[in-house]
Amino acid sequence: MNYHNRSYCGELGVDQVDQNVQIAGWVDALRDHGEVTFVHLRDRSGIVQLVFSPQFSPEAVCRDAAELKNEFCITATGRVVRRAEGTENLHISTGSIEVVIETLAILSRSETLPFSISEKAMVASAAGFSWEAVSEDLRLQHRYLDLRRPSMQNFLIKRHRINARVRDFLNQRGFIDVETPMLTKSTPEGARDYLVPSRVHPHQFYALPQSPQLFKQLLMISGFERYYQITRCFRDEDLRPNRQPEFTQLDLEASFIDEDFIYELIEELLAGMFEIGHIRLPRPFPKMTWQEAMDLTGSDRPDLRFEMFFVEATDIFKDTEYSIFRQVLQRGGRIRGINVKQASEPLSKNILQNEYAKEIVPGFGAKGMTWMRVTGGRLDSNIVQFFSLTEQRRVIERFDAVDGDVLLMIADPSLDTVNAALGQLRLHVANRLGRIPRDTFKPVWITEFPLFEATEEGISSSHHPFTAPDRDDFDPARIEDLLTLRSRSYDIVVNGEELGGGSIRIHDRRMQQKIFTALGLSEASARDKFGFFLNALDYGPPPHGGLALGMDRVVAMILNTASIREVTAFPKNRSAYCPLTSAPSGVSRGQLQELNLLDLGGREELPGTDHQQDPIDKLSWLSRIGLDDGERPAVAAAVEDAKRMADAVVGRAPEESPSFSALPAVSRYRDIEPAQRSPFVETGELFKNAPAVKGDFFKVASILE
Amino acid sequence: MNYHNRSYCGELGVDQVDQNVQIAGWVDALRDHGEVTFVHLRDRSGIVQLVFSPQFSPEAVCRDAAELKNEFCITATGRVVRRAEGTENLHISTGSIEVVIETLAILSRSETLPFSISEKAMVASAAGFSWEAVSEDLRLQHRYLDLRRPSMQNFLIKRHRINARVRDFLNQRGFIDVETPMLTKSTPEGARDYLVPSRVHPHQFYALPQSPQLFKQLLMISGFERYYQITRCFRDEDLRPNRQPEFTQLDLEASFIDEDFIYELIEELLAGMFEIGHIRLPRPFPKMTWQEAMDLTGSDRPDLRFEMFFVEATDIFKDTEYSIFRQVLQRGGRIRGINVKQASEPLSKNILQNEYAKEIVPGFGAKGMTWMRVTGGRLDSNIVQFFSLTEQRRVIERFDAVDGDVLLMIADPSLDTVNAALGQLRLHVANRLGRIPRDTFKPVWITEFPLFEATEEGISSSHHPFTAPDRDDFDPARIEDLLTLRSRSYDIVVNGEELGGGSIRIHDRRMQQKIFTALGLSEASARDKFGFFLNALDYGPPPHGGLALGMDRVVAMILNTASIREVTAFPKNRSAYCPLTSAPSGVSRGQLQELNLLDLGGREELPGTDHQQDPIDKLSWLSRIGLDDGERPAVAAAVEDAKRMADAVVGRAPEESPSFSALPAVSRYRDIEPAQRSPFVETGELFKNAPAVKGDFFKVASILE
Repeated sequence: MNYHNRSYCGELGVDQVDQNVQIAGWVDALRDHGEVTFVHLRDRSGIVQLVFSPQFSPEAVCRDAAELKNEFCITATGRVVRRAEGTENLHISTGSIEVVIETLAILSRSETLPFSISEKAMVASAAGFSWEAVSEDLRLQHRYLDLRRPSMQNFLIKRHRINARVRDFLNQRGFIDVETPMLTKSTPEGARDYLVPSRVHPHQFYALPQSPQLFKQLLMISGFERYYQITRCFRDEDLRPNRQPEFTQLDLEASFIDEDFIYELIEELLAGMFEIGHIRLPRPFPKMTWQEAMDLTGSDRPDLRFEMFFVEATDIFKDTEYSIFRQVLQRGGRIRGINVKQASEPLSKNILQNEYAKEIVPGFGAKGMTWMRVTGGRLDSNIVQFFSLTEQRRVIERFDAVDGDVLLMIADPSLDTVNAALGQLRLHVANRLGRIPRDTFKPVWITEFPLFEATEEGISSSHHPFTAPDRDDFDPARIEDLLTLRSRSYDIVVNGEELGGGSIRIHDRRMQQKIFTALGLSEASARDKFGFFLNALDYGPPPHGGLALGMDRVVAMILNTASIREVTAFPKNRSAYCPLTSAPSGVSRGQLQELNLLDLGGREELPGTDHQQDPIDKLSWLSRIGLDDGERPAVAAAVEDAKRMADAVVGRAPEESPSFSALPAVSRYRDIEPAQRSPFVETGELFKNAPAVKGDFFKVASILE
Repeated sequence: MNYHNRSYCGELGVDQVDQNVQIAGWVDALRDHGEVTFVHLRDRSGIVQLVFSPQFSPEAVCRDAAELKNEFCITATGRVVRRAEGTENLHISTGSIEVVIETLAILSRSETLPFSISEKAMVASAAGFSWEAVSEDLRLQHRYLDLRRPSMQNFLIKRHRINARVRDFLNQRGFIDVETPMLTKSTPEGARDYLVPSRVHPHQFYALPQSPQLFKQLLMISGFERYYQITRCFRDEDLRPNRQPEFTQLDLEASFIDEDFIYELIEELLAGMFEIGHIRLPRPFPKMTWQEAMDLTGSDRPDLRFEMFFVEATDIFKDTEYSIFRQVLQRGGRIRGINVKQASEPLSKNILQNEYAKEIVPGFGAKGMTWMRVTGGRLDSNIVQFFSLTEQRRVIERFDAVDGDVLLMIADPSLDTVNAALGQLRLHVANRLGRIPRDTFKPVWITEFPLFEATEEGISSSHHPFTAPDRDDFDPARIEDLLTLRSRSYDIVVNGEELGGGSIRIHDRRMQQKIFTALGLSEASARDKFGFFLNALDYGPPPHGGLALGMDRVVAMILNTASIREVTAFPKNRSAYCPLTSAPSGVSRGQLQELNLLDLGGREELPGTDHQQDPIDKLSWLSRIGLDDGERPAVAAAVEDAKRMADAVVGRAPEESPSFSALPAVSRYRDIEPAQRSPFVETGELFKNAPAVKGDFFKVASILE
């Protein structure tokens, strides 16, 4: 059997009328009219109707045709004919012709299907078939059938075209596709790693990359200047609906650039990608600082398809008699609201009070919601009586409220709570009222994120510690100062969904150390945590920055699918399980044995960072001398010096016996100075932490004796 | 600092003379001529010379220039000038100009380098620097510096271009790039898997893919028709020199095709890839069956850059008096040889006897080697005296030998040994005599591999059990018949290296079962091992086939690098260890705990295939009835039936209490027949395996009582 002259089903048309063609594919649907059988044959390109009729087809062919069932794989030859007027099928692109069959070969047969595949069934009864009714796990279990559906094929083919568009564009712009390792090192930061036990190095583990972040920065330090990769990343997170354990990222980085380079590049790139879904993105993309986004929508992923922006109302109520607001303000809280224009009809008092105030908003984390409707130029609500007339007037002015508007306010001692709850409320109301236009795409760059965020222990990096700050004149010891720093980072958000983000990175070793100091990491601990990367920064790193796009999400948005699983050939389900292959699964004891995994529990000393105590902490503990943060760098440096000397000595003469010098030994690392009287003796600061004093003596830990 | 108007160093030339330019990059080399400093500035595009001179450059700029050291990252502006005649530098492409610097910014500084980076150093002393002298682990540890070398950048940029060429070509041919999972199922076949413990499913493991073989076949069954992917694969093999734990494969598959489609496609594809290395592959590629390759070169990866093909000599010596040959022939052995044309000068008797016969050839696994030189039309060697004149004459004829030729023969009872040793000898001699032309590329398709190979237990698949056989009329029970089967597989070999391979797959469920039967796998065990894939074959699979290319090897061959590590950005070393990141490494006990890895050793019942005994084996063991291979399918079918019935019953009424029927219970799975007297009673076959007989009774296992 050969297929050298095969035609594609979906490409046949009136131009081929009277030609003899060979086609191959799957039986999408069948209709048996007694003597005559009609078959819809489907291949990747589309569907064409085959006709088996005793008038034209040999008897044996008709006999074989009678055996056909849905999803049999066949090839056939025949003559293309124009359909009689009035019998055209408008549901398929080849509907004006059909192929009268002369030969038929059944290439393989099909069992009864677990679910219907045809999306253009010929028979009326199948029209009511709904894909939503098929459980997703059943689809995933038989994914090879699910993927035969033209709509699923369309998704993956479009995804292919989007990828190709990305590559063409970046190749033209001088970006180099470089492959980075999948078996790499577990890092202490970020989300949970997937680990891969090493057989060759017992009790050691590779980690699958959460992103090629450090590798792409290393490529910049290597002078590649422009790098990209469409690559798989892995995060062992607790699963949320639209997450997969493995996901695909467009990762890119460039040197000798600034933010404007990234904006221009990514806008051009995204515009090209969205074109494949026939979507025009408005350009240039607007920019919003993080602060503006929070103040207007309570979210760093603002949905700008509609306005309904936040209005600040705290100052209006600074002397209020309304006890709930007063208590909030006394605790330093805030009051913000939104104006739902012309919504007093759909949002009845009952809905506002009993649904939103009592049920929905408490679900968003706020204690409650204050609502007001505007009628006859005045506010109307269950609590308006507690507001002064000035307050009422100022509310109407501030919210630009007119008759028919509904004002919703949230008051809470925590601004974060106000923003979070009001932000969700904004989306909920807009959704409920149908005010989110479905075919509109509103991209926005969110910039100037806080560099640090406050934690219980002090501060931590909002993004990662390699993100450049917006200024370099800060004091790493002053937390208030640090919390005002903004980063040179940017997220690209479309319709309230974060599609990607990145930053300009730090390329100055001293600035990097300043950031680590701010984070409470000594030089030594930083080396311990980020060792090889910090070493690289010692060798002339260029200014650089980049961005990563979540390809699954971008493609799902472009193709408007219900989830990223629809644009993934073989996804896991929500339990990180693959119903098709049954992965993950049990493995043999032999495999575990070979990977040295059977004796991990019993080991006294496990390898691992838990046991890699900071050497300064260890020294402090051993010596029973507390070291404050100011002292640690000096001690760390001294220990490093000592270690270097020891290493140097070991390196010099590993095999020789010790030599005895005729000269007196002299410390080469410190000038010998006469003993000095410590000023702390006068002030009583010396040994003031000693546990006890006995006569003229301090009682100190034996190690100091 | 912005770089919007930056020029690339390597792109400057006489066209830019008198223009003001901004450049940025790294100090490749420095020469300090007192007042005047010359700097080679390097970026991705090349090198240009900067001149700092008090005559043109401001004083502060000259001061800063004095601080420059190798690999500082800088940006500068200045005027392009033509170099004075006689001072051009022919070693760099921009050697006819230089840039007189007006502003300079040091972007970052560099520590002293662990090894030199400049490949075009200006100073003569550095010319003697040899890359081979730098240990590879040191290079890998500082890979970010190693990758700054122009030759390494060239390798990765060319690799990028080769990948882009592949994608463009396959996209044009209608192939769809589909991403397949990295977290997938461990399969019992093939090499060792890398495992990934699942946190969500305790004691279950994902496996990293050894290749997307089953997924690409599933995509064919899904009707994608043409698929490709450039994807990472993983094999936890014991490391050989040119292997990496993770490697990149071009994987492709197509439906409704035959071998000719693959040949044409891949020849066109490879020709395009090799073009990037300025290599023209001769087309069409010749084809050689596996049998021919073995008979001519002793290898299924024949190096065809030179001939020196095997000559069969067994029949010449069938009545020989020479005792060594006689003994070999008596044991059914073979004698084959090669004619090393015109080599009697370089291959002296001493070299032939003392090096080859005594040292080298025994190292290839043969007991020894017979050598003859041709002088004066006659054979000359230490054993020629034992050959009859007829034998001598026939050797000269058969080997087409003339004066100056050297004939080498290997005789061994095992043909495999003859082929393996003579094959290696052929390469060794050709190499030694410089008869392998270095700039020649000789591709060849190797076809018609044996479908099965003999093992101690019977037979196993040479490739994998989904490879289509060359004919379907074989008897799966006759091993001799099975061993004559050839597969519809093909390897692409260039210069003795296998770059890839593939096959036409089985798409017929019955043929697939026939192959499993030949391999001794019952339907049930096959389902157990390849479950989801066999299910897919039940639903109209199309005829399909494909191929995978080892991209690392192909790229390394095109770029003529010493190893695949030179074309890999961040490779592991030979111990599967990354000197840069220190992966693999220890992880915290907390991580292991979370992955449920600490209690694997203590578990009584470990999940895993070791414990998933074949149900028929278990039944046989429980019942103490041995089942021979003929009986197993029938018993397996009966067990399957019983299981299906049990499942059906459970499925029907899971919650209801048992009902009691008023009608008598009747077996629905067997017609009730009267008891029959077994014919085995007469023959004494009944219970003949019973361990003991006591009077008229057999003593049998209690389960039969």
